[in-house]
Amino acid sequence: MRQLIEAMFLPAFAEESGRGTGDSGKQKAEEPAHDSAVVEIAGARLAFTTDTFVVSPLFFPGGDIGKLAVYGTVNDLAMSGAKPLYLSAAAILEEGFAMETLHRIIESMAAAAREVGVRIITGDTKVVDRGKGDGIFINTSGIGLVPEGVDISPNRIQPGDMIILSGDLGRHGMAIMSVREGLGFEANLQSDCASLAGLVEAMLAADKSIHCLRDLTRGGLASALNEIAADAQVGIELEESAITVTDPVRSACEILGLDPLYVANEGRLAAFVTQHSAEKVLDVMRKHPASHGPAIIGKVTKEHTGTVVVRNQLGSARIVDMLSGEQLPRIC
Amino acid sequence: MRQLIEAMFLPAFAEESGRGTGDSGKQKAEEPAHDSAVVEIAGARLAFTTDTFVVSPLFFPGGDIGKLAVYGTVNDLAMSGAKPLYLSAAAILEEGFAMETLHRIIESMAAAAREVGVRIITGDTKVVDRGKGDGIFINTSGIGLVPEGVDISPNRIQPGDMIILSGDLGRHGMAIMSVREGLGFEANLQSDCASLAGLVEAMLAADKSIHCLRDLTRGGLASALNEIAADAQVGIELEESAITVTDPVRSACEILGLDPLYVANEGRLAAFVTQHSAEKVLDVMRKHPASHGPAIIGKVTKEHTGTVVVRNQLGSARIVDMLSGEQLPRIC
Repeated sequence: MRQLIEAMFLPAFAEESGRGTGDSGKQKAEEPAHDSAVVEIAGARLAFTTDTFVVSPLFFPGGDIGKLAVYGTVNDLAMSGAKPLYLSAAAILEEGFAMETLHRIIESMAAAAREVGVRIITGDTKVVDRGKGDGIFINTSGIGLVPEGVDISPNRIQPGDMIILSGDLGRHGMAIMSVREGLGFEANLQSDCASLAGLVEAMLAADKSIHCLRDLTRGGLASALNEIAADAQVGIELEESAITVTDPVRSACEILGLDPLYVANEGRLAAFVTQHSAEKVLDVMRKHPASHGPAIIGKVTKEHTGTVVVRNQLGSARIVDMLSGEQLPRIC
Repeated sequence: MRQLIEAMFLPAFAEESGRGTGDSGKQKAEEPAHDSAVVEIAGARLAFTTDTFVVSPLFFPGGDIGKLAVYGTVNDLAMSGAKPLYLSAAAILEEGFAMETLHRIIESMAAAAREVGVRIITGDTKVVDRGKGDGIFINTSGIGLVPEGVDISPNRIQPGDMIILSGDLGRHGMAIMSVREGLGFEANLQSDCASLAGLVEAMLAADKSIHCLRDLTRGGLASALNEIAADAQVGIELEESAITVTDPVRSACEILGLDPLYVANEGRLAAFVTQHSAEKVLDVMRKHPASHGPAIIGKVTKEHTGTVVVRNQLGSARIVDMLSGEQLPRIC
């Protein structure tokens, strides 16, 4: 997917960006791809992002497509350090989609938006013929305001930076797979689907100079860190023992032959901070309900640029590659 | 469609809007729905809009889904008087969709964005299994800046306002239908798909106080004016003889039993201006390449509130109703 986007979309759109008026759009081809683009309009630094949700099933333990569509875009904005303000919501309905189900999804979106404090202010609905869609697909785009002095980007990552993970891994992906594959783990396997906006706000209040944030969605921790290592041209070293995976997630992963490091999360982030402020940020995270056992899981190195290495308790190291292909389709 | 949106989406999202911080989001339930929402962020008035494109076929005489996705959202921003600045682009691909086709569509989007002077700065791609999509669906959302002193809204319409139409009607809808139904009109029937942003900028330069603008997409002129008459609580009277429909569009409409007043356009707008400034605005429009025979087609009345009436050359009048149901599915 990343290759597809990079190979086709970015160069085509960057070309046209190149002719722009020199404003500070960040998602040019020569700069690393971000969760959100940050641009300056009339003196305000705004984050802008879009995401389409095609998750199947529409309702899963711990959430539904409506919640996911709100939190997902809110989290992308938060990963730029922005305070999420406004969302759009656009639905593609398959002909015959049940109105009660639509109603439940809309209510769920409204509740999630209320909780986060964002407003859904513009929308669109299209209907496609039966067999040309799948129930409902939802796109949300969002606008957020980046506070003065906040500058979050892979470019700012330095060797020596500490990497903090906000909680246990793999819940969202395995909650979805458990339902799809009928594993019967549903009782213990709830999606981690949640807003990270409040957590990020608290973290930035503790340390405005946080270097980089990334939420660990499709492709999980491993893909996120591989992207960052490549973009920032640094190496990353992780301590396996510091990474938490709950027993139900581990069991489900074993049954399906999946590695939790690659499984999608919808309420977890990795933060890159200086060694100096790591404890301060971690302390704030420990007190915030959106983190679940935050921990320093590794550090940034000058060595093995572009590569992520995990060290186990015996001290032996393995390379955590970028996955080619999508491990779990339609997980979000 | 409108009923669906109004009945479900708006109340659910307005409820949460009501708890906002009193900022100037315009798409509250108590205010008429707009092409874009206008909000104030850090002192700047921004327009924000979203639209999903599911047009079939993907390539049609005069355009393609990529062009349409850029112009459509640009036009929605322009209808708030905003200068379009940034777009997002999110694609849902059906498994097996040809990469050459994707490439052509992306190039077309990039060319359209370049032409308009907007930048596509953030994107997303999802792939769904075969039979769960239809080639490609594209969502674009957009941000524009509303200039100082511009305030475009159905609320500002007054009895006595003149209604200006920017060109002939029905080309987009009939270009699509001609291909779908194999009418063989393609040579003479090109979609009017185009950006209206430059035209609106020129019109606002001539008269900053334009009351309302609306592009005549799904449901055509008739639906747009019915929505506005209901929202603004005014009557509308049109002169049939002032409305241009080309011969190929008229012929295609006759064959398919359609009324050109209801057929979708993708490059036409209606403007509501004071009687005083109508000639001045019309004059600017005549000189702009994005209008095609602009004309004053009618006026706003105090009488028959919420109703659109068309008078023919013999002086007899008929009511132009809101269509229930969608006349032409997947036209955009």
